[in-house]
Amino acid sequence: MTGKEYQAELRNNRIRNEDTETINRSVRDIIQQVRERGDEALVAYTAKFDHVQLTNLTVSIEEIEEAREIVGESFIQAIQSAIKNIKGFHEEQREKTWLTNPSDGVMLGQKVTPLESVGIYVPGGKAAYPSTVLMNTIPAKIAGVKQIAITTPVQEDGKVNPYVLTAAAEVGVETIYKVGGAQAVAALAYGTETVGKVVKIVGPGNAYVACAKKWVFGDVAIDMIAGPSEICIVADESANPKYAAADLLSQAEHDELASAICITTSDLFAEALQLEIQQQMESAERKAIIEQSIANQGRIVVTESLAEAYELVNELAPEHLQLMVENPMEKLSNIKNAGAIFLGNHSPEALGDYLAGPNHTLPTSGTSTFSSPLGVYDFVKKTSIIHYSAAALNEVADDIITIANAEGLYAHANSIAIRKEN
Amino acid sequence: MTGKEYQAELRNNRIRNEDTETINRSVRDIIQQVRERGDEALVAYTAKFDHVQLTNLTVSIEEIEEAREIVGESFIQAIQSAIKNIKGFHEEQREKTWLTNPSDGVMLGQKVTPLESVGIYVPGGKAAYPSTVLMNTIPAKIAGVKQIAITTPVQEDGKVNPYVLTAAAEVGVETIYKVGGAQAVAALAYGTETVGKVVKIVGPGNAYVACAKKWVFGDVAIDMIAGPSEICIVADESANPKYAAADLLSQAEHDELASAICITTSDLFAEALQLEIQQQMESAERKAIIEQSIANQGRIVVTESLAEAYELVNELAPEHLQLMVENPMEKLSNIKNAGAIFLGNHSPEALGDYLAGPNHTLPTSGTSTFSSPLGVYDFVKKTSIIHYSAAALNEVADDIITIANAEGLYAHANSIAIRKEN
Repeated sequence: MTGKEYQAELRNNRIRNEDTETINRSVRDIIQQVRERGDEALVAYTAKFDHVQLTNLTVSIEEIEEAREIVGESFIQAIQSAIKNIKGFHEEQREKTWLTNPSDGVMLGQKVTPLESVGIYVPGGKAAYPSTVLMNTIPAKIAGVKQIAITTPVQEDGKVNPYVLTAAAEVGVETIYKVGGAQAVAALAYGTETVGKVVKIVGPGNAYVACAKKWVFGDVAIDMIAGPSEICIVADESANPKYAAADLLSQAEHDELASAICITTSDLFAEALQLEIQQQMESAERKAIIEQSIANQGRIVVTESLAEAYELVNELAPEHLQLMVENPMEKLSNIKNAGAIFLGNHSPEALGDYLAGPNHTLPTSGTSTFSSPLGVYDFVKKTSIIHYSAAALNEVADDIITIANAEGLYAHANSIAIRKEN
Repeated sequence: MTGKEYQAELRNNRIRNEDTETINRSVRDIIQQVRERGDEALVAYTAKFDHVQLTNLTVSIEEIEEAREIVGESFIQAIQSAIKNIKGFHEEQREKTWLTNPSDGVMLGQKVTPLESVGIYVPGGKAAYPSTVLMNTIPAKIAGVKQIAITTPVQEDGKVNPYVLTAAAEVGVETIYKVGGAQAVAALAYGTETVGKVVKIVGPGNAYVACAKKWVFGDVAIDMIAGPSEICIVADESANPKYAAADLLSQAEHDELASAICITTSDLFAEALQLEIQQQMESAERKAIIEQSIANQGRIVVTESLAEAYELVNELAPEHLQLMVENPMEKLSNIKNAGAIFLGNHSPEALGDYLAGPNHTLPTSGTSTFSSPLGVYDFVKKTSIIHYSAAALNEVADDIITIANAEGLYAHANSIAIRKEN
């Protein structure tokens, strides 16, 4: 399609906050039950939804050791290599407490303090996401969070996926709960006999988990409400259609709602890409999901210029953006809205998903217009510091009194006047 | 009361997310109407709730000029002095885009981009809050936000409070809507004929405004759900009871739900403070509100040590904390949870509310356990940057493939393998 057609489509579809009355009601009920009945409710919901009768809500050391043997040495090495890169990038995000001395007798500052406790939701059951463990835990650790707990639904055999467990062990998380769904979010938000209350809940999940996070928001902090995953590739003639097709498919395999979009200035590239997608799709292991995703959300958009392509990108505000164009680094200033930008032919999204270093938890569904990747900054909070001497306060006293009186807050004015008199 | 008694009280009361079914239903209806009927709904709700028939939804230049004449020169000077200090502090919060080169062929980075548009809710009607205008607008301006709009309910005469208008003019905001309540939040979130859609909504408001912000959260960003205001003063023998009493009263006058709490190690100070509060309350202009706030939420807690006092502070996680103790700067490391810390006898909360420089929009109701003051960081978002050369990708290819296969995401693995072959 053309850039204009795609823009019209974008503008028609961009309402995210749809009504979800049924899920809402169900989640409110689950939260209420967990607050009232604690562990008992967690066991009951796990029996109901995961069809497993839990006798212990936490993972034992034996289970972790067993997991390490299942996953094998090459997986452990790969995870260690990922941890090294993810740590390296997130170390750069550390923030420091600062103080300034703007005038005589005045000290102002900003104190940076790690959150006391964080709960990380890791999806499980059929699929296993060890990378979710790394991407959520490492920034929290670097921020200095002391209490980190993971919660994840069990498999049909009552165990947690061994790849998830091994990743958790490698990053040094000791508390792992065998609970999934809205009940896990409720337990982390309000605490139960076994599950410790945390001050922030992060990590992706299904519609129930997302809804539960929205409900407990305010009582605890949450990261973001994640939607289906998206990729947008901007390609010129220099792009390799084989690579681009593989990257689009890697996005499409996430789920049927995932979006794989390519915007190109080249008709030739568009044709070659279309062919490659068809070919690669044939042999893909998750073909059924990919086909549905590509058919429903897949788009190849041909624009008249790169400028038009960047305009569409900024309107789409994609989670993942690959700039497969010449001199991609120089094009950075054109991009206002994206979760992560992958530059050139050799920086595919999968590299960032697992190992490059930056976080793979990114704002979806156009929320990169206002949200950032998960980072160390999500696991600290700031406190302002104000220190005035008597003389410094005296100098500004009249101005404060004037504004306080204008707001009709006379006791505010008085708290300054009473000091001025002395 | 003693520290132990206060701790027990704190633990009993600390559930914030109460059921608000009626407000919820009403707000959902308002949002729906504004999305469907646009300006027409805004005019209708303003007639219904504010009893004013609006003919124009925006403030005119003539109205701003009229306002400046009403407020007078000393107010304008005070506002300019406040702007200077608030700008100075927030300039220190600017963040820069960075790039690193962790190994050969690898460039990683974090791009900082201002939000495109922000809507600021300023409460109005009976009370006027010009300081809200400054505290919300200035960090957005410093962040580089180009489109900033203010929305505020009109007075009975159909005009916006002149102090609010003048403050808006002084910080350079040109777009001011005469709309309040949940309808204003809905208009900013989804846009109407007159009100431009924004990507983030900030600013305090009543229960309806707070509820509306919670509903539109996800479609747009919001700052935080603010609760009633709080002060906690930690005092030793060096504290001046007259000052402390004035500061507690300045907090109590906000509204009947405001909390004014003093924790002290000195029985003598506690007695002197009690007397001062009684005396100063007698002559307070907002006596009725102050009396109710002090009676219901006011507390004087006597602890056995400063260490016990700091422990209580961290559990309370107060919005405003005054450390009226000897060598207060040295006590900073004891404080983990607070919105802002005011040090010594000459740094009253009112100083920070208006003029010291740091933001007065602070996390309330114990949310300073996980939230920060409003700042420049709330008006930018970050984008990760990833650039690998072919050789650099080749080196990590096997590790990526291993993890992708463990997650069952074979097209992810393929997007790496396909590059490795070449």
